[in-house]
Amino acid sequence: MALIVQKYGGTSVGSAERIQAVADRIIRWKQKGHDIVVVVSAMSGETNRLLKLIAAVNPKGSAREHDVILSTGEQVTIGLLSLALEGKGCAAKSYTGPQVKVLTDNSFSKARILDIEDKALRADLADGKVIIVAGFQGVDGDGNITTLGRGGSDTTAVALAVALKADECQIYTDVDGVYSTDPRVVPSARHIPRLSLEEMLEMASQGSKVLQIRAVEFAHKYHMPIRVLSSFDENDDCKSTLVTREEDIMEKVVVRGVAFNRDEAQLTVTGVPDEPGIAYKILGPISDANIEVDMIVQNVGSDNTTDFTFTVHRNEYEQAKEILCALAQEMGARTCAGDNKIAKVSIVGVGMRSHAGVARDMFATLAKEGINIRMISTSEIKVSVVIDEKYLELAVRSLHEAFGLDADIT
Amino acid sequence: MALIVQKYGGTSVGSAERIQAVADRIIRWKQKGHDIVVVVSAMSGETNRLLKLIAAVNPKGSAREHDVILSTGEQVTIGLLSLALEGKGCAAKSYTGPQVKVLTDNSFSKARILDIEDKALRADLADGKVIIVAGFQGVDGDGNITTLGRGGSDTTAVALAVALKADECQIYTDVDGVYSTDPRVVPSARHIPRLSLEEMLEMASQGSKVLQIRAVEFAHKYHMPIRVLSSFDENDDCKSTLVTREEDIMEKVVVRGVAFNRDEAQLTVTGVPDEPGIAYKILGPISDANIEVDMIVQNVGSDNTTDFTFTVHRNEYEQAKEILCALAQEMGARTCAGDNKIAKVSIVGVGMRSHAGVARDMFATLAKEGINIRMISTSEIKVSVVIDEKYLELAVRSLHEAFGLDADIT
Repeated sequence: MALIVQKYGGTSVGSAERIQAVADRIIRWKQKGHDIVVVVSAMSGETNRLLKLIAAVNPKGSAREHDVILSTGEQVTIGLLSLALEGKGCAAKSYTGPQVKVLTDNSFSKARILDIEDKALRADLADGKVIIVAGFQGVDGDGNITTLGRGGSDTTAVALAVALKADECQIYTDVDGVYSTDPRVVPSARHIPRLSLEEMLEMASQGSKVLQIRAVEFAHKYHMPIRVLSSFDENDDCKSTLVTREEDIMEKVVVRGVAFNRDEAQLTVTGVPDEPGIAYKILGPISDANIEVDMIVQNVGSDNTTDFTFTVHRNEYEQAKEILCALAQEMGARTCAGDNKIAKVSIVGVGMRSHAGVARDMFATLAKEGINIRMISTSEIKVSVVIDEKYLELAVRSLHEAFGLDADIT
Repeated sequence: MALIVQKYGGTSVGSAERIQAVADRIIRWKQKGHDIVVVVSAMSGETNRLLKLIAAVNPKGSAREHDVILSTGEQVTIGLLSLALEGKGCAAKSYTGPQVKVLTDNSFSKARILDIEDKALRADLADGKVIIVAGFQGVDGDGNITTLGRGGSDTTAVALAVALKADECQIYTDVDGVYSTDPRVVPSARHIPRLSLEEMLEMASQGSKVLQIRAVEFAHKYHMPIRVLSSFDENDDCKSTLVTREEDIMEKVVVRGVAFNRDEAQLTVTGVPDEPGIAYKILGPISDANIEVDMIVQNVGSDNTTDFTFTVHRNEYEQAKEILCALAQEMGARTCAGDNKIAKVSIVGVGMRSHAGVARDMFATLAKEGINIRMISTSEIKVSVVIDEKYLELAVRSLHEAFGLDADIT
């Protein structure tokens, strides 16, 4: 008997029929003797309906009131799923985030979880009830409703699993796990049955959008195993990916997968005076405008000047460019330019730690295909490069093959 | 400067445009120097949408989960109205029932308010904020979300007004107050600018559906003046009805209005043994089936037997009849019969207390029109009769005229 936290996303609970199917699945797990805590998102379409109402009234109002409105989406789902379980003879009880309580800071619309009270939940579990918790939401110290922002339901699930010391956190989604790369780009992409939380972290942040990065960070910090499964597969022993601690993974590979991302844009200033504090001077105003910066590269130039390049989300490219070019003029930089037709490709794998030469092999592979590298960034278990967007598929395919990731043809 | 609690129903906040209009009205009141607390219902149509979702999943599930789902309707409205006020430069803050907190018992779907915490609200009022509270909902001692049932938002408004010691509770609806009878039946019906809470109680319970009876009872108990206004009238000094303490009303009349109700059905058993406890024996099983009984009449019959008649809501007629006729057989009653084509007509007025002969005048008027009376029930300030439904309009018109209620033709 295990304690399992399951999370079902918006598509999985998108209609009365889908909710019944989720209830059936929960009951099958319960009948195997497990204690089950379920985290749900708003029904697909509901959040957009609420955002439209907000936009019609006042799109620029306080985030506090946005959260009051948006949190109702998950609240409806927990009630409906509890009713569905009751209707099938399974005792269930719903909890909103504030009812649990999921204590957060007061950063409305992007709150961080500080603590989760587990007493009431444990008592209900001991009573044999299935617990249904609204994801994405919590309450701050003053009793205000907060939401956790994008991917918040995954984070709620992992945080609850940690608080309850669950054996596993199962994330039901519309795919059956993590692949060595996107199968739409490389049809021979291999399903990965197990990978480490650190690898998942790099895969997630690099654009493999199966799990939200905040949830993986949380799981990584508290060593909580996550299993990614498809809610569209009726078989409970279906294919899945277990994301767990590195030491629990038998099969070690050098490169686990190839991740990529076309949502970025690149900005460069050249001929900036090479003096202390220059990175702060450039990135400070960008950060003040609430624009997140991903990769950053600084090169020594000639004449006591330096060249500075970074990437931002493509949606924020125009705004960032405007800020940067105004700054460049002020600072007497030589040029200010940008490009939003770029892509980032990364190879990820814990084996890199002990295997030298992985980066070199990556660069060689790209060179052989005539693909020019614009930026390079590395971590212990990842190498990322920025290239022209038009070479993206070619780069992913050739790296996937070069590192032996193609599925065996059987 | 006064403290005013305003309540806006579902039609008044039924769209983004209507919410903006409500925000404009609130700001006009605020600009007159008043402190404003606003109670809102769910946007019209929203509760039905949620009920349909519930029906599709499990209509027979626990009332606790129904309340979790239904309470989201008002939560969306409070957020939207707060955003609308913010957008117009007016500081506002929303509160769900649990946030206030509106403490209730745990009778899900028909909870009763036990207490309201006013500390946080007072602090926000002192800060100059308009407070927006979700009507219809509260929280029980264990933190479960409850709803107050039909007319719950009116009750929330009055209870808040009492808790905050407000000067007036304004109920905005789609009519501009209370009339001497329904203007659709008697076009010459007169608008009543002031009437007593006791009269309103009798008018409300008799089917003048402007205010919910529970809210009026609450106001009556705590002497809270209620003003009924139309949210469709742009003029803030528009026609309204002030429902207040009897002693605050200058103009005393014998009969204030004629109320009526066609939602009832009549049930009769004859030849029941006339012995102690007979009323309990008959009405106990009816009450156990959760059927509310309105009028009750017992007549002495012949041969130590008695005849017993009562009325129930027309929706519950078939169920009540089944229970009653089974009982009648058990008890050896002579007959068991019913009629759901009846109507109740009442005359209401505090002046009746000091004026004899009002009932006699009522019976004489009906006799003159050839209308047979089936049941009579009286209170200090009301006389009700049950008649054939087909005579309803005739009875209302003739009583309205006989008691001098027709508006002066000017």
